[in-house]
Amino acid sequence: LDPLITLTTDFGPGSPYVAAMKGVIVGINPAARLLDLSHRIPPQDLRHAAFFLRSALPYFPPKVIHVVVVDPGVGTDRALLYVRLDKLRLLVPDNGCWTELVRGSARLPLVRRLTEPHFWRQPVSATFHGRDILAPVAAHLSLGVKPKALGPRVEEWVHLEMPAPRMEDGKIRGEVIFVDPFGNLITNIPADTLPAPPAELRLGEKMARRRFRWVRTYGEAEPGTLVVLVSSSGQLEIAVAQGNAARRLRARAGSPVTVGWEKAM
Amino acid sequence: LDPLITLTTDFGPGSPYVAAMKGVIVGINPAARLLDLSHRIPPQDLRHAAFFLRSALPYFPPKVIHVVVVDPGVGTDRALLYVRLDKLRLLVPDNGCWTELVRGSARLPLVRRLTEPHFWRQPVSATFHGRDILAPVAAHLSLGVKPKALGPRVEEWVHLEMPAPRMEDGKIRGEVIFVDPFGNLITNIPADTLPAPPAELRLGEKMARRRFRWVRTYGEAEPGTLVVLVSSSGQLEIAVAQGNAARRLRARAGSPVTVGWEKAM
Amino acid sequence: LDPLITLTTDFGPGSPYVAAMKGVIVGINPAARLLDLSHRIPPQDLRHAAFFLRSALPYFPPKVIHVVVVDPGVGTDRALLYVRLDKLRLLVPDNGCWTELVRGSARLPLVRRLTEPHFWRQPVSATFHGRDILAPVAAHLSLGVKPKALGPRVEEWVHLEMPAPRMEDGKIRGEVIFVDPFGNLITNIPADTLPAPPAELRLGEKMARRRFRWVRTYGEAEPGTLVVLVSSSGQLEIAVAQGNAARRLRARAGSPVTVGWEKAM
Repeated sequence: LDPLITLTTDFGPGSPYVAAMKGVIVGINPAARLLDLSHRIPPQDLRHAAFFLRSALPYFPPKVIHVVVVDPGVGTDRALLYVRLDKLRLLVPDNGCWTELVRGSARLPLVRRLTEPHFWRQPVSATFHGRDILAPVAAHLSLGVKPKALGPRVEEWVHLEMPAPRMEDGKIRGEVIFVDPFGNLITNIPADTLPAPPAELRLGEKMARRRFRWVRTYGEAEPGTLVVLVSSSGQLEIAVAQGNAARRLRARAGSPVTVGWEKAM
Repeated sequence: LDPLITLTTDFGPGSPYVAAMKGVIVGINPAARLLDLSHRIPPQDLRHAAFFLRSALPYFPPKVIHVVVVDPGVGTDRALLYVRLDKLRLLVPDNGCWTELVRGSARLPLVRRLTEPHFWRQPVSATFHGRDILAPVAAHLSLGVKPKALGPRVEEWVHLEMPAPRMEDGKIRGEVIFVDPFGNLITNIPADTLPAPPAELRLGEKMARRRFRWVRTYGEAEPGTLVVLVSSSGQLEIAVAQGNAARRLRARAGSPVTVGWEKAM
Repeated sequence: LDPLITLTTDFGPGSPYVAAMKGVIVGINPAARLLDLSHRIPPQDLRHAAFFLRSALPYFPPKVIHVVVVDPGVGTDRALLYVRLDKLRLLVPDNGCWTELVRGSARLPLVRRLTEPHFWRQPVSATFHGRDILAPVAAHLSLGVKPKALGPRVEEWVHLEMPAPRMEDGKIRGEVIFVDPFGNLITNIPADTLPAPPAELRLGEKMARRRFRWVRTYGEAEPGTLVVLVSSSGQLEIAVAQGNAARRLRARAGSPVTVGWEKAM
């Protein structure tokens, strides 16, 4: 079976940089099958990338090679990594955008630093390691090069701190961590930590409590209704049935969210 | 030959939901070849989806499996369908976004309701049947599972009413049904119903008649000229040569269009 | 190995026109592997297309077939071409968007005009030769049809004049030729023509000289710093570290750029 390589970048759709990476990969391994995951990670937005990867990569089978290029430190002395975590294999800058994947995993990741220039494109541009290092390394891996040929194991890497929800006065305080293209607000509050469907909801520091309906799915409420539900990734989600909650509530990634269980706040 | 599966959704480009569906499919059938058709159907816009599918799917050969996820009713009791129409095979929510494909077809579609959870991902999320039902069913189909294993035949399904043009006082009254990314306005008026090139054109309820040129192709007119022509899908189209008609005329899907043959209106 | 066909268009992401081309190609050659390069070339923008193709296609290996549909002259008597340049094979309208690829090539391109309707889809729409001519011809080529069967060799074709930088009073005057999705401004000034890191920079006709830092990569400067560097394609680039230079400096493709080596201007 021809090997699969996925691409996730912040290059923007229509970027010639993505096209160049594809050319480099199929130039080294013409049999590689390429899958675009996203090229719309907001520029240099590591938290967005972290949420994206955690929402997408666990659905993939073993052996797929995932190339991630969200790389504000390109050309500096930040490392580039090969990561093996359970069944996942990633090539990714050492900026922590992948470390959310470790949460919930029983095993520790095996991490190597890419130091072997034999598998790179030469000369290496100072601003485009995606094309000159990550893409060719992915292609060589897909041809059967052993990970240990890429560079030495390392035991330390950058961890990305993701905001954690906390319990306070019987309420849970978290935040919006992802706004999907429908405008649905995915929070960092795991739905299975809720003792019961919440009775109150605050969104934003100064916003008054909101009337909402607790639903199982959008279609249970009339179009336009503010609803709270369990997202498809198991987190508390705030949405507007057939509408755009982000626009209506002027919320975005980082907006604070509080849920409680008493009507009077 | 490895099976082809196409994806059409309203998830937005860069959505982790699309990436998750891809992971689920290649997890079940690693040999599946995936083709993105569009992830920019406007959210829950069934008419847009209907026009898109009718403009794209008939060009595909048999055996391709088309997965369509425009699904405002996700998680409610709306059905999910397997549709076989002539050579086309679709997996699609029962909301009518595919029924335009039937127009002009000599044969009736064969439709099954997906009821067999054996081919689904478990647990099934209430808000993401694309990932948990349609994607795995597509992958199983691509592995050779027989359609009849997916669920029973049904004889009724939702039909989407698309606006039909009508003749009135020697004029044809229709509407814009699709604005393409160039800003060209595709109408619901089949060009082969026109007795002659129209001499008058109204766009919008209150707009005065417009000066325009009847052309065979955009390049026949000077840049900036308002032109009327036969679209590549055989419908009356309003465009601005090397310009954006939607922006210039402030038109959009649903804008009324009238064409007539007498200069004085 | 199954043949690779890439697609570059100005159709916009989510366009049913792209989907239709994919259907036509796999309808003729079900084994063809399709790669999207970009569908976001700005409508009819030949210079953007020229920069895109020059930045992307040289990274691809031989035998790949590149289909380019940026075609303001569709349906007029402009020709459609098969181009063989070094290892590259293109199918492209005769509007010059590919001729930048010739610069720096030792060999002359071999060019044929597509005249053989046997390899086209019938009937040919006047407004969509991508679907009806270029896509089917690409599919037939990928099946092994010889280029000479497509039409006769031609010795003349449209050349696109790209703006060239010029030396004046010890300064180099060029312009922005591409704004990437990060807002980085790629100029037409080859970095290897600079005698030394520039000491002054003007952007726009009336803009005062700008304070900036000459860096090797973005990460060398504090976020928000205006930097000048060598782009990954070897040209002078103006950027804002972790910011958007196009937005901050209100620059776009065509904005004049002057660099000099004396502080007093």
